Amino acid sequence: MAGEFDLIRQFFTHQAPSVRVGVGDDCAVFDVEPGAQLATSTDLLLEGRHFFSDIDPFKLGHKALAVNLSDLGAMGAKPIGCLLGLGLSNFNHSWLERFSAGFHALANKHGCPLIGGDTTRSEQGIIISVTVFGSVRAPFLTRASACDGDDIWVSGPLGAADVALSLLMRAQQGEALSDPEHELLEKTRPCLEMPAPRVELGLSLRNLAHAVIDISDGLLQDLSHILQASNKGAVLYVSQIPVNPAITHFAPAQKLKAVLGGGDVYELCFTAPASARKKIRMAGNESGLSLSMIGSITSGNKLKVLDEDLIEIQDLPSGFDHFR
Amino acid sequence: MAGEFDLIRQFFTHQAPSVRVGVGDDCAVFDVEPGAQLATSTDLLLEGRHFFSDIDPFKLGHKALAVNLSDLGAMGAKPIGCLLGLGLSNFNHSWLERFSAGFHALANKHGCPLIGGDTTRSEQGIIISVTVFGSVRAPFLTRASACDGDDIWVSGPLGAADVALSLLMRAQQGEALSDPEHELLEKTRPCLEMPAPRVELGLSLRNLAHAVIDISDGLLQDLSHILQASNKGAVLYVSQIPVNPAITHFAPAQKLKAVLGGGDVYELCFTAPASARKKIRMAGNESGLSLSMIGSITSGNKLKVLDEDLIEIQDLPSGFDHFR
Repeated sequence: MAGEFDLIRQFFTHQAPSVRVGVGDDCAVFDVEPGAQLATSTDLLLEGRHFFSDIDPFKLGHKALAVNLSDLGAMGAKPIGCLLGLGLSNFNHSWLERFSAGFHALANKHGCPLIGGDTTRSEQGIIISVTVFGSVRAPFLTRASACDGDDIWVSGPLGAADVALSLLMRAQQGEALSDPEHELLEKTRPCLEMPAPRVELGLSLRNLAHAVIDISDGLLQDLSHILQASNKGAVLYVSQIPVNPAITHFAPAQKLKAVLGGGDVYELCFTAPASARKKIRMAGNESGLSLSMIGSITSGNKLKVLDEDLIEIQDLPSGFDHFR
Repeated sequence: MAGEFDLIRQFFTHQAPSVRVGVGDDCAVFDVEPGAQLATSTDLLLEGRHFFSDIDPFKLGHKALAVNLSDLGAMGAKPIGCLLGLGLSNFNHSWLERFSAGFHALANKHGCPLIGGDTTRSEQGIIISVTVFGSVRAPFLTRASACDGDDIWVSGPLGAADVALSLLMRAQQGEALSDPEHELLEKTRPCLEMPAPRVELGLSLRNLAHAVIDISDGLLQDLSHILQASNKGAVLYVSQIPVNPAITHFAPAQKLKAVLGGGDVYELCFTAPASARKKIRMAGNESGLSLSMIGSITSGNKLKVLDEDLIEIQDLPSGFDHFR
């Protein structure tokens, strides 16, 4: 159903002169004054679709801001502030207290204060809309900037969020999880519910990386967005893709699905010239993140994924489409 | 239930150094660079709460942006761009075409291009979140700036939106409207469904007005917001309040309710010193708007409304509370 996404986008893509980066990237970038550019992004989170009704409100407050800060990170933008639109079906003091505590804790950590918003009664469950602002400088880390021969990098080990989501969905449907599954859920759910947005890393990639994206739709789908926007191809080496330790014992196909296809991941995937390798490793060390070089950008526009034996995988898992 | 609003706000009011105007005004204002301030506002519109399911999507697209541009107007901000978050239950080509046409038509009129957004499937009906940005200059037209002796002004005739809403709600509930009621609905519903945001007027009030607000919650409630923020009182003269021609034949109490209490109005209410009267009238003429001087700001913190015989009205209609 990715086609529907494209169709929807066509109605809303109008380019304007003051806009440096428009509809379709992690952030929009526009001129406030000559020499002062702002990056901004908005996300809508709906109960039952983007989070379970019984989620800890502290974690929900954290995540609602995290997914937006992740977009600033992918743009190499320095957070300035945010807005919160909140639709609630009733007034629950302790829920609001915990939600706002989770929100503010992350906001404080990244210097991104809540500066305004809107509150409304909703008959349709909890509705959260967050908008973030950050300052940026050219050259912008857009999706369209990948170059032939660039290395492809990814931050952090992958796969945990997808596994946690599958287990939580089964539990929500009343299925009893086994003890090892419970243990697996406890290990993986922080990646799903308390993702750490890569704001610091994004800032340090300015003047190092070419194209950057967060992989909220999954590694394969979001890398495809870079390839489409840059009109390039890529080769990925499965053996180089970092896998979360909690799922290394999975069968290869299951692991591949989680790592390549699993969405709701707020790590950064980026491309950079080979000459930047040393500085990128240093940037990773400074952010306390392990960065992995997982492939390279090629001419043409095909995405090839090579297995451990360097044989091309034909049956790739599909990405996460919010409009499916 | 206005108390709940205040309670919710308390969870989200954290002041930050770069923020010039924070949570609780029409817009938040913050520094992008030294000397470059941005005003921003966000609104959440939910199907069944803020609009009927069968609303013409062109009008819905217009209104979703209009209510946000109105906040920029109330801040004297010049529009720069906007973001749209859209939750839809299905993909309907003609609906999207008309919605986006209404949105873009108003965006073009005010130089406020759509620069980004988010789309998601919603099981809960149509959910719209719009965020607008505009450039502003100090002194800011906040709610807290009213001074003793200021005139109180309002743009445009009032009362039509409230009447249209009442009639539409009766029709939605299956009640048959009489012919004169149908005629009245046709005359009043453009005020409800296609409000014109007072962006030009807001810009021309820079350096003339003190406190400015849009009266989306109704004249009395929003004027009260100015009085509370400014720690002032006011006296209003009913005879001076401009009434929409379509409802001048109403009984006095009915008219008063629509004019003083009716929400969903995107006119500006503002306070200004008597010395600015001539320039304000000129600003009104240039915007093609009739501006009415309807009262004055007083010390103390009481809001008095005087009837045609200058006798204080004791039983005032209450305002519109989105969280009721």
